[in-house]
Amino acid sequence: MSVDREIINQAIPIEKIRYDDRGLVPAIVQDYLDGTILMMAWMNRESLQKTLETKETWFWSRSRAELWHKGATSGHIQKVRSLRYDCDSDALLISVEQIGDVACHTGERSCFHRVDGQVVPPPADTLSQLFAVICDRRDYPTEDSYTCKLLNSGDNKILKKLGEETAEVVMACKDDDSSAIASEVADLLYHTLVALAHHKVELKDVYRKLQERRR
Amino acid sequence: MSVDREIINQAIPIEKIRYDDRGLVPAIVQDYLDGTILMMAWMNRESLQKTLETKETWFWSRSRAELWHKGATSGHIQKVRSLRYDCDSDALLISVEQIGDVACHTGERSCFHRVDGQVVPPPADTLSQLFAVICDRRDYPTEDSYTCKLLNSGDNKILKKLGEETAEVVMACKDDDSSAIASEVADLLYHTLVALAHHKVELKDVYRKLQERRR
Repeated sequence: MSVDREIINQAIPIEKIRYDDRGLVPAIVQDYLDGTILMMAWMNRESLQKTLETKETWFWSRSRAELWHKGATSGHIQKVRSLRYDCDSDALLISVEQIGDVACHTGERSCFHRVDGQVVPPPADTLSQLFAVICDRRDYPTEDSYTCKLLNSGDNKILKKLGEETAEVVMACKDDDSSAIASEVADLLYHTLVALAHHKVELKDVYRKLQERRR
Repeated sequence: MSVDREIINQAIPIEKIRYDDRGLVPAIVQDYLDGTILMMAWMNRESLQKTLETKETWFWSRSRAELWHKGATSGHIQKVRSLRYDCDSDALLISVEQIGDVACHTGERSCFHRVDGQVVPPPADTLSQLFAVICDRRDYPTEDSYTCKLLNSGDNKILKKLGEETAEVVMACKDDDSSAIASEVADLLYHTLVALAHHKVELKDVYRKLQERRR
């Protein structure tokens, strides 16, 4: 089975979806770059139809009892990359490009932004989580942090470490030692993220380059 | 604000959650390593309570009208890493370690596995998606693919490319050219993934090493 096929604008069979007794189905909205869950909202048959037609998300507002074009007033529309339904056909998963990188009406990136009253970045992939921590160290330094020391020591030191870690990946591969390869690649990725943070380049920009090439 | 704090076992205020008129709230379950959405199910107050107590997921089965400990029969339990609710307090997002890497009753990793009848890996982060494509190329080679050619040319060629790409990241950083840095890091990540695929090391194992170090 080849996974490398066009699933971006794949139509889903609207009549297959199992709406509940209110005629609604939950729709989970996920960032296409880093897998962050941006929000969960409700769709009825009509909003799903409009989403498929316009390739932007439309929902059903239960409180206002009306169709709702996400971003119509805020400008924070969601461009649909792919649309799936689950094994029971009673939930939708929509992969989107979030314009403005803000999905929540509070101005936060994701509606799932609070942990016990404090605003915390929502879970994404491991690398994006680690990158958020590194950028946090850069912007709010702490004394005993290796990341802070490395960032403070400047470009040449960071880039020297990058070369070193690459050499260690090469050696682990030549030894064909799976555990060492995983460890050394982890080190290489961490130091690559430090270099990005040092130069204020976003990991998302790297992901975007990789996604562009896939097309 | 520091993001590097313990949110793993964070309690959420059960009485704050807005259950619907059936006493239920949708719960989205996400893989803690790569951000993949594994499933969506329903919780009532009791299943949320049991989830918080046991740190494994419990749901409410609408069809069987009973509490359901995910994985109790299959062994595919979900260990809770973090639990959040959204800005309206009417949806939950649960980050889990999925035992057996299978969440769906069909045996697939995710319940969102079908696109138009065909089984396709669910969306995750960009790097995991790219890694899936590279492994697919390794296992089902196609003639005109750069990835296949690189994999066929063997370890020394792959590792030489890794060194080359690292040097290009170093040069882009020394030029402090943001766009070049993003491009060269994209190249470095791609070639690192090819090295992993060649040695049959999973990207998830690398992510796991990175997560272990954060603790």
